[in-house]
Amino acid sequence: MCESTAYILKDGKEELVFEGVDLLESSDDGVKMVDIFGEEKIIRAKVKRFSLLDHKIILEPN
Amino acid sequence: MCESTAYILKDGKEELVFEGVDLLESSDDGVKMVDIFGEEKIIRAKVKRFSLLDHKIILEPN
Repeated sequence: MCESTAYILKDGKEELVFEGVDLLESSDDGVKMVDIFGEEKIIRAKVKRFSLLDHKIILEPN
Repeated sequence: MCESTAYILKDGKEELVFEGVDLLESSDDGVKMVDIFGEEKIIRAKVKRFSLLDHKIILEPN
């Protein structure tokens, strides 16, 4: 029940990237996220902020 | 109810850093975490992984 929604900052605005994120792994290449259905998404970004209260992950481009 | 526990990887082992984390903010300098009581902790590290299922944040030294 703690899955979160990931957004990426573009021109100061939050753009939806992925919903229902259960797992996030970060490397030099980018960020891999896995959602509650096991689907994966990898994007060239890094974690800027996340709030477990708001269930919100904010990424920024690498 | 989604607050998580943060660990840092040291010599491949997870060392407890901070419990009850509600908010995490990452910058070039390190990671700032705020717990459910509003207490803050800043450490020189970056986010390696987090699991919203396990309520676990894994950091690695910068």
